[in-house]
Amino acid sequence: MKKQLLELQNYLAQNNLDVAYVSSPTDINYFTGFYSEPEERILALLVFPDKDPFIFAPQLEVEAAKKAGWDKDVFGYLDHEDPFSLMAGHIKDSVGSPIKWSLEKDHLSVEKLESIKQQFPDATFPDNLSRYMENAKLIKTDEEIKLLDAAGKEADYAFEVAFNAIKNGRTEQEIVAEIEYAMMKKGVMHMSFDTIVQAGANAANPHGGPEKNPIVPNELILFDLGTIHQGYISDASRTVAFGKPDDKALDIYKVDIEAQYAAMDAAKPGITAAQLDKVARDVITKAGYGEYFIHRLGHGMGTSEHEFPSIMEGNDMVLKPGMCFSIEPGIYIPNVAGVRIEDCIHITEDGNEPFTHTSKELKYID
Amino acid sequence: MKKQLLELQNYLAQNNLDVAYVSSPTDINYFTGFYSEPEERILALLVFPDKDPFIFAPQLEVEAAKKAGWDKDVFGYLDHEDPFSLMAGHIKDSVGSPIKWSLEKDHLSVEKLESIKQQFPDATFPDNLSRYMENAKLIKTDEEIKLLDAAGKEADYAFEVAFNAIKNGRTEQEIVAEIEYAMMKKGVMHMSFDTIVQAGANAANPHGGPEKNPIVPNELILFDLGTIHQGYISDASRTVAFGKPDDKALDIYKVDIEAQYAAMDAAKPGITAAQLDKVARDVITKAGYGEYFIHRLGHGMGTSEHEFPSIMEGNDMVLKPGMCFSIEPGIYIPNVAGVRIEDCIHITEDGNEPFTHTSKELKYID
Repeated sequence: MKKQLLELQNYLAQNNLDVAYVSSPTDINYFTGFYSEPEERILALLVFPDKDPFIFAPQLEVEAAKKAGWDKDVFGYLDHEDPFSLMAGHIKDSVGSPIKWSLEKDHLSVEKLESIKQQFPDATFPDNLSRYMENAKLIKTDEEIKLLDAAGKEADYAFEVAFNAIKNGRTEQEIVAEIEYAMMKKGVMHMSFDTIVQAGANAANPHGGPEKNPIVPNELILFDLGTIHQGYISDASRTVAFGKPDDKALDIYKVDIEAQYAAMDAAKPGITAAQLDKVARDVITKAGYGEYFIHRLGHGMGTSEHEFPSIMEGNDMVLKPGMCFSIEPGIYIPNVAGVRIEDCIHITEDGNEPFTHTSKELKYID
Repeated sequence: MKKQLLELQNYLAQNNLDVAYVSSPTDINYFTGFYSEPEERILALLVFPDKDPFIFAPQLEVEAAKKAGWDKDVFGYLDHEDPFSLMAGHIKDSVGSPIKWSLEKDHLSVEKLESIKQQFPDATFPDNLSRYMENAKLIKTDEEIKLLDAAGKEADYAFEVAFNAIKNGRTEQEIVAEIEYAMMKKGVMHMSFDTIVQAGANAANPHGGPEKNPIVPNELILFDLGTIHQGYISDASRTVAFGKPDDKALDIYKVDIEAQYAAMDAAKPGITAAQLDKVARDVITKAGYGEYFIHRLGHGMGTSEHEFPSIMEGNDMVLKPGMCFSIEPGIYIPNVAGVRIEDCIHITEDGNEPFTHTSKELKYID
């Protein structure tokens, strides 16, 4: 059984919890090596302090779970069967009626909780397993760092494709098509999120999408992209110059890269997440663009881009070796231009190492 | 205000509910025309029986919501702010402290419910808005049917690309790359689900993914794909012959298409979902393959592939004009071959019309 599962069993025993109901596909994968997105069907990993865990899955996923290397029980159900009643049967066969449950409350729906309560009327739900997961995943192992490095290399390759795909008259969407096609031909079938290509003023709308408008020269073009490598992600942003952008655009680039470098220099053991956010924010505020940096400096990442630590005001978590997160200051001036420069890094004994290595000096493309 | 919102207000008034908390991005889009996937951030539409609704969103989505045409309030929050406390303030400003809440319990996480309870300790949650949504979306309007038709045409084009992409030695993943690249170049930036291309015995694992193995002649190849057109999806499957598959493979194709045609003929107002499932299942069972048809006949669809009606044993819902769903019998013989043939249709006054029109007669590709 994987070390991660033994640790969870240990956690349950120490906290007098009778069962953990793992429902997030990413976390089921973390514990079992089996990834599946069940959509509206039910997929769960049941873990007990002293008994073997089992997977409960749609019948059509049972073979896939075994194929992924899971060697404990997998119980399937058919579409017309009542999944919670069947699952309850398997739980009762194994441990009777568990009282104290640990649930992934950030993930589990209210409706599924009500279904569990129907099967186990005496159950209580004192523990949010999502908090356990955040801490369990907080410090990455060397093996995980290797996978994140490999994902970062894929992102670097994607930037290479991206910069070559910039051509007068091509639309942002067409550039996305070129990037994702090249990645799929390399066997990267899933980007870690929708690839963002935004030119000129469109880049001032962070997390907006690529549009059908053709790119034109003398603007900045912002790329934000990432891949998934054996369940571990990359996530990086670069902003490049197509032709000769105007002075305002060049100025916000200069300020943003200064902020990014300042944070890269400051990211080491001992500093807090909030302090690190402030290092970058101070640079941007001092330059007069503070109001245009409207998101946190970074997010934790690993098996997803929604892990700990969150690099933001108010988070006094002290950074430690093995923590992985993005450093992505952005300046977005509505109707003018947007710049974001982002690397994900892992904290080392005395500093940090980025997973992506594409140059951040402003690249001019003709 | 959109008709759909007025109907929801009416529903709240009639059921003495004080507020609806809409949290599913698809449903927020259904009511507002604004689509965004907020990931771990908070995005909600608050609807009241007698007051204007408002959107509560991450600050970086506020502009996008307005740009999408939403002309009521949008309240934003920054990453370091406490979203539920801010949102509660806006709710209290508008209607005081609502007692009876309607929640999308199928979507809302247990953790978010606990956050709402903290802000509104006297609140009760008697109503699952997910059930309302299923019924609200059950009968599609003519306008919606047009969008589903447009999405279906995109899927037909994807099959054209797909069949042309079949070449000896190409991998399943490479064929997926060709399909999605062609679609993105047409401006279809999101497939409605991961495109499935499975050859030979790999197709016997329904909902498995495309692999890196090169396709070889004399096998069946199964395609399952769909697009998103202005928020409405397509979803269709075709299985084709690459070279000359063996008799066993040809036999399961013959049986599966017979089952599919039988269900297409039977799908009309008056029959129940369970009866329709049985029409196809009986054909397959009679031919001796019943145990290999391991999923329901179909799922409702529209803005997603998880709507009502579910076409399966036990569902006695009577089919009516405007209902939209898939008809997708499948036969999966482990280590041998798999066949699935699927159209999504809408029930008309006296029968049905499919959204996809790609021929279902077995196509031989050299």
